[in-house]
Amino acid sequence: MAAPPAKPVLITGASGNLGRALARGLAERGWTLRLTDIAPFPDPLPQRARFERMDLAEGVDLLHFAEGCGAILHFGGISSDHPFNTVLGPNIQGLYHVYEAARRERARVVFASSNHAIGFHERPGQANDRLEANCAFRPDSFYGLSKAYGELMGRLYWDKHGVENVNLRIGSCFPEPTEARMLSTWLSYADLVRLCEAAVTAPRTGHCVIWGCSDNPASFWGRDHRDRIGWQPQDSAEAWRERVGGLTSGNPVTERYQGGGYTAQGYSRDEPSGRDAFALD
Amino acid sequence: MAAPPAKPVLITGASGNLGRALARGLAERGWTLRLTDIAPFPDPLPQRARFERMDLAEGVDLLHFAEGCGAILHFGGISSDHPFNTVLGPNIQGLYHVYEAARRERARVVFASSNHAIGFHERPGQANDRLEANCAFRPDSFYGLSKAYGELMGRLYWDKHGVENVNLRIGSCFPEPTEARMLSTWLSYADLVRLCEAAVTAPRTGHCVIWGCSDNPASFWGRDHRDRIGWQPQDSAEAWRERVGGLTSGNPVTERYQGGGYTAQGYSRDEPSGRDAFALD
Amino acid sequence: MAAPPAKPVLITGASGNLGRALARGLAERGWTLRLTDIAPFPDPLPQRARFERMDLAEGVDLLHFAEGCGAILHFGGISSDHPFNTVLGPNIQGLYHVYEAARRERARVVFASSNHAIGFHERPGQANDRLEANCAFRPDSFYGLSKAYGELMGRLYWDKHGVENVNLRIGSCFPEPTEARMLSTWLSYADLVRLCEAAVTAPRTGHCVIWGCSDNPASFWGRDHRDRIGWQPQDSAEAWRERVGGLTSGNPVTERYQGGGYTAQGYSRDEPSGRDAFALD
Amino acid sequence: MAAPPAKPVLITGASGNLGRALARGLAERGWTLRLTDIAPFPDPLPQRARFERMDLAEGVDLLHFAEGCGAILHFGGISSDHPFNTVLGPNIQGLYHVYEAARRERARVVFASSNHAIGFHERPGQANDRLEANCAFRPDSFYGLSKAYGELMGRLYWDKHGVENVNLRIGSCFPEPTEARMLSTWLSYADLVRLCEAAVTAPRTGHCVIWGCSDNPASFWGRDHRDRIGWQPQDSAEAWRERVGGLTSGNPVTERYQGGGYTAQGYSRDEPSGRDAFALD
Amino acid sequence: MAAPPAKPVLITGASGNLGRALARGLAERGWTLRLTDIAPFPDPLPQRARFERMDLAEGVDLLHFAEGCGAILHFGGISSDHPFNTVLGPNIQGLYHVYEAARRERARVVFASSNHAIGFHERPGQANDRLEANCAFRPDSFYGLSKAYGELMGRLYWDKHGVENVNLRIGSCFPEPTEARMLSTWLSYADLVRLCEAAVTAPRTGHCVIWGCSDNPASFWGRDHRDRIGWQPQDSAEAWRERVGGLTSGNPVTERYQGGGYTAQGYSRDEPSGRDAFALD
Amino acid sequence: MAAPPAKPVLITGASGNLGRALARGLAERGWTLRLTDIAPFPDPLPQRARFERMDLAEGVDLLHFAEGCGAILHFGGISSDHPFNTVLGPNIQGLYHVYEAARRERARVVFASSNHAIGFHERPGQANDRLEANCAFRPDSFYGLSKAYGELMGRLYWDKHGVENVNLRIGSCFPEPTEARMLSTWLSYADLVRLCEAAVTAPRTGHCVIWGCSDNPASFWGRDHRDRIGWQPQDSAEAWRERVGGLTSGNPVTERYQGGGYTAQGYSRDEPSGRDAFALD
Repeated sequence: MAAPPAKPVLITGASGNLGRALARGLAERGWTLRLTDIAPFPDPLPQRARFERMDLAEGVDLLHFAEGCGAILHFGGISSDHPFNTVLGPNIQGLYHVYEAARRERARVVFASSNHAIGFHERPGQANDRLEANCAFRPDSFYGLSKAYGELMGRLYWDKHGVENVNLRIGSCFPEPTEARMLSTWLSYADLVRLCEAAVTAPRTGHCVIWGCSDNPASFWGRDHRDRIGWQPQDSAEAWRERVGGLTSGNPVTERYQGGGYTAQGYSRDEPSGRDAFALD
Repeated sequence: MAAPPAKPVLITGASGNLGRALARGLAERGWTLRLTDIAPFPDPLPQRARFERMDLAEGVDLLHFAEGCGAILHFGGISSDHPFNTVLGPNIQGLYHVYEAARRERARVVFASSNHAIGFHERPGQANDRLEANCAFRPDSFYGLSKAYGELMGRLYWDKHGVENVNLRIGSCFPEPTEARMLSTWLSYADLVRLCEAAVTAPRTGHCVIWGCSDNPASFWGRDHRDRIGWQPQDSAEAWRERVGGLTSGNPVTERYQGGGYTAQGYSRDEPSGRDAFALD
Repeated sequence: MAAPPAKPVLITGASGNLGRALARGLAERGWTLRLTDIAPFPDPLPQRARFERMDLAEGVDLLHFAEGCGAILHFGGISSDHPFNTVLGPNIQGLYHVYEAARRERARVVFASSNHAIGFHERPGQANDRLEANCAFRPDSFYGLSKAYGELMGRLYWDKHGVENVNLRIGSCFPEPTEARMLSTWLSYADLVRLCEAAVTAPRTGHCVIWGCSDNPASFWGRDHRDRIGWQPQDSAEAWRERVGGLTSGNPVTERYQGGGYTAQGYSRDEPSGRDAFALD
Repeated sequence: MAAPPAKPVLITGASGNLGRALARGLAERGWTLRLTDIAPFPDPLPQRARFERMDLAEGVDLLHFAEGCGAILHFGGISSDHPFNTVLGPNIQGLYHVYEAARRERARVVFASSNHAIGFHERPGQANDRLEANCAFRPDSFYGLSKAYGELMGRLYWDKHGVENVNLRIGSCFPEPTEARMLSTWLSYADLVRLCEAAVTAPRTGHCVIWGCSDNPASFWGRDHRDRIGWQPQDSAEAWRERVGGLTSGNPVTERYQGGGYTAQGYSRDEPSGRDAFALD
Repeated sequence: MAAPPAKPVLITGASGNLGRALARGLAERGWTLRLTDIAPFPDPLPQRARFERMDLAEGVDLLHFAEGCGAILHFGGISSDHPFNTVLGPNIQGLYHVYEAARRERARVVFASSNHAIGFHERPGQANDRLEANCAFRPDSFYGLSKAYGELMGRLYWDKHGVENVNLRIGSCFPEPTEARMLSTWLSYADLVRLCEAAVTAPRTGHCVIWGCSDNPASFWGRDHRDRIGWQPQDSAEAWRERVGGLTSGNPVTERYQGGGYTAQGYSRDEPSGRDAFALD
Repeated sequence: MAAPPAKPVLITGASGNLGRALARGLAERGWTLRLTDIAPFPDPLPQRARFERMDLAEGVDLLHFAEGCGAILHFGGISSDHPFNTVLGPNIQGLYHVYEAARRERARVVFASSNHAIGFHERPGQANDRLEANCAFRPDSFYGLSKAYGELMGRLYWDKHGVENVNLRIGSCFPEPTEARMLSTWLSYADLVRLCEAAVTAPRTGHCVIWGCSDNPASFWGRDHRDRIGWQPQDSAEAWRERVGGLTSGNPVTERYQGGGYTAQGYSRDEPSGRDAFALD
């Protein structure tokens, strides 16, 4: 386990399930944390942690709160699919404020991106067909679109300002798998905490993208930049196969694409979206 | 020249320079047009055209105006770099309304994207090193970022709803080239009009991306989906070489990257952004 | 009981008391429902029903949700008297979105209007003096004024676009009468459900207005367009006369006018408002 | 000519064409005026007049400015048809502030209503078939709907608070008639000024409605409450018959209904709207 | 005990701790109260009291509710330190509406100001060094700054419009002292109620400022305008000395300045702020 | 003349009359400037100057633009009296962003305050009765109130964060005096530029207040902190006495108080505001 970072680490979205797991896990490692959320923090405040309630849309307040931090774990914003206008404020405008704070502090951003940024890629037929992290974006929802936007904001701040950022394309981060698809996409809380620990403490990351799933044999996802931060997942969804392996949706769209139910929500095309639609031939 | 489309074509941003050129050029081809902009239309209204002043943020009004249209040429929104919050409204929220209108009408979208969506790619060393349209996004500004977002919105609506869209990565669309970089990036008004004509009248496009520059020998850009719509540029910037070939910026960032001055605006990295920063090795 | 409508029926305000009664009652008749409200739906979701949480002020989202529906039961908005600015958003702007959705879908609107749109008419002296539905509007509050506005919006959409709409001037829709005035104004839940059923399934309605009260001998209200939809109330408030007949307010304004307590709220005239104030003599 | 009112008279919308005509005409009669508009007042300020630039949406500022006034000529707001959301603010919210100001000052409101509040009534076949002022509202546009709303707001404030209000259903108030329809609907500036003079100085008006057109033989409009204020128009459009009598639109909807072109704008019904659609039979 | 005021007294912020204490205490004295808050009133409504829920930002509604009142106890707004933008709305804009209401009604304002308007004055070395009420403002937070602003708004309305106002620089108003600083700053609920009673019933106050603390021997505060209203505190914090006298913060900034913990929150100066920084020498 | 500051100096409100005079005058002294305003800059851009159009309400953009600056000349906001809500945004919220920028950059603020912050002090009877800068605030308008607020914001940032600020209580800064009052209050453009030069280049200022008027024998104002920055005015209004000495208002309120016409605007007290109203006796 690495030594705690020299500077405080800011966690946005601290009152959500993942934010709370991170706050608990990183505080146990001796980290100094600043926590923020638009909702009150529901747990006892961990040692060395400060919480301030804040709307990410109020940029000047966020910049103030981030002063002196060395990294920002940006887990705030809307975390599942909603009507467009609901996603716009927290996931688009708030992101800009996070990156401006990082630029000012020369801090690193660890961004909770999502597999839904690429959800319209088909599921791989076999293991050696796994999707690589430099694949094209294929968002499956306004939510996924906002996550692609977030990754590209990171790309811009790295190219123009040298702000480092690690984009975690999180699969399904829950206490345990609850449906067949999660045999591929599940990320354990413990792996998430270790992933964020590595992303913050790695000496140098540039702009990179890492699949946020545990060591699942059935994973959809292949090569990424995990070597840059020296992370390897330690848990696996496979142990739940018997219990959840039969829990599929029956919806052919859901089962065909990596994004699962998000791709089928409101789906209205006549024919399936071809895998090679963007290829140049 | 193709026959006019069976249904009216809606042009957003009709009061801007490109919108006016399109309105004039397409009306001359006998098209029935609906024009809209937040600013008044400064020219005499072309035959078979209707103009209605409108804020793209008022989605219900836009959906109403688009009724019965077969295609939307989306040239509205902020057309150069501005502070983040200025870009957000017109370029992000308005785009959603345009795509909802297209989905309702089963209309095709022709989107005025921009080279600034990929502006942080280095300029090619030689002609066979030209950038292909399926390259990674490398936005060079909040403006460029909004254009990448727009292309991905098109990707989503194609994958999920079968809404066809043609994304024009416009280089520099002006009456004539005015600096050395435009020997590579210039798009003549006449080529733009022909490009939009082809994009609307092509039988089938899916989601595709086309470099919006004339037939310039010094172009940065290579393969794209132009064959799908049967377009070839007919003009060339080369005739202006003598007059503008010496007009470079002297700024090494500007001259290194495809996006030119946009990349240097506010640039604050210590070292240049490597071309292969995203490669997996 | 009529066969279920061929197309889904949208209910706004589905999480309110009346919305819930309708959702339950119409689902039991085998209808396919789409439910929406700004608050979560508090009951188990009925069969064949979908719920989506939504702000009626977000028109594009509402238009999307209404796609394919054959009728809209518009019970959303503020349902009792509030300061003006609170009523404005949900009851005025949301109404426009409902009617635009209906126009697009060629759907029929069933609008929860209110007796407070005509509340400043005096109570009738005797049964043959009952008020007819084509009486002049006499709103008794900002709430009642917003309901008059809603009926006139329906008038406009019928005259201009042929959108059919049935306006229910609901009296007092509660589980049972709780004061003397409700002997005249009470509408049972069962009569409400049958009324909406008839309003949706009638072959043709045009723009019409129906008094929403049960078969009360003491009713204030006479002729209306109920024959167009073939509805007759089956319940009556009279059974509660003994229990509530003595429960009057003691306020002369409340007791003089049909709108009851709404008319007295903030009342500041010196003399009573004459019945014939608008007559031409 | 009556003596000037004892208290100042407030004119909203003072910078518009009608507001300017009123300011000039009433100042010449020796009245003390307070003028307000969201746009600057373009003329030299008349004697005894004060101008303050103001947004009608800022209610507290308006209430302050109205202190001590005995009447409010409410000519502010959007004066022709616009998208719904543009009309909402000035014509709905501003109206509430005007009526609150009048209630506080116990002042009378003279409201610039419009024939478009009843524009979907058919034009009369013959003179004895003229429409009376107590006819049903039949708005022909969102603009007309906002005017009906304004008249009903006046109805409410009269019934509940004893605020007197005179609603002028203005036809076509221009320097002179410019099309055939105006032979029926024209109101001369001089008649408008005399009408407002009478509406302010009449001893008692209650809530009343007056057709705002000159003494045109071809008028669509019959009985109203003009006797209450002792006004008779003195001009007539008939003198222009030769010049404009042939200037009709050729659009059958426009020519059928009283509201003229407003009724045809966006008209999409299959069959004409029947005159007796609301009759009870 | 003085006779109840002839006119009703309006209390804003009635649902807060102090507002509730005032509502209860003044109702017991036979006063007629109007209560308002953005949150529901949590207690049974006292006799002769009316409650209306309201946002102080809606000025026209507040002006309406204040009609006929003879005094306004303005205890609404944000009552402790928050990010700037949270304080702006309720504490700045709402204040303007309160003073406009007072001007209209020729009512007196009793304003819940705070010691944090002068919190950066050092604590006195000895009793004869107590701070006088006409000292310079030295706000210690955005909250304190909004209170200074409120006192100066009162100054303006007195100078320009003759609106009387009594500004209570409240120390620490709690059921009992809970830390050492409160031995100086505590104000008992009973003293608060008597203070407000005196402020409302005094024949004439002009603009004045009164320290809101009980008769504490250790008080920081000396001369003020209490003689104008004839108030003397009757309780004292001294009885709690044994229990709380040792409860200090250990923070030198907190202990040095009158504002206590508010001064230390976010403190980032290198050296202490000198007492004489503003002196002219 | 001092050497140019080592760091760039930011001027807000650069497109106003005073901002333009400062931009021109300080650029001539060789300063590096950053200019911003919500309106375009109307002059040719001075050497070493950058202009960016910006709304002071967009704090994150302002913080970005201020990076690296050593001082901020805050001349932005509304510069004369307007309705309350117009003043609120630019003069209150923008000010917070300016001070947050200064805190981040450890920059000094030079604030364009105004005599209207103290305008309700009476004019002095004789020269030795001149008002000192540490007098109580007596704002004469919402504009003046916003300036008092700005000075106190400076007080807070100095006390808490050590941000230095120089508050210029500007009298009447115009090309030349145009009325009798300006014989006392006039500040020449040249004196203004020298004043700002001194305020920026002085080694240490703390929080201080300086009367912004030229060396006028008839000045209302006496001692202040000008010695801290080593400034002395060099121009005098006296030369215009003959031309403007007779140009008084005739209004007793205007002529009695220092703020002139601002004090009389809307004045509604019965008796004059006594000078000693706040004195403790």
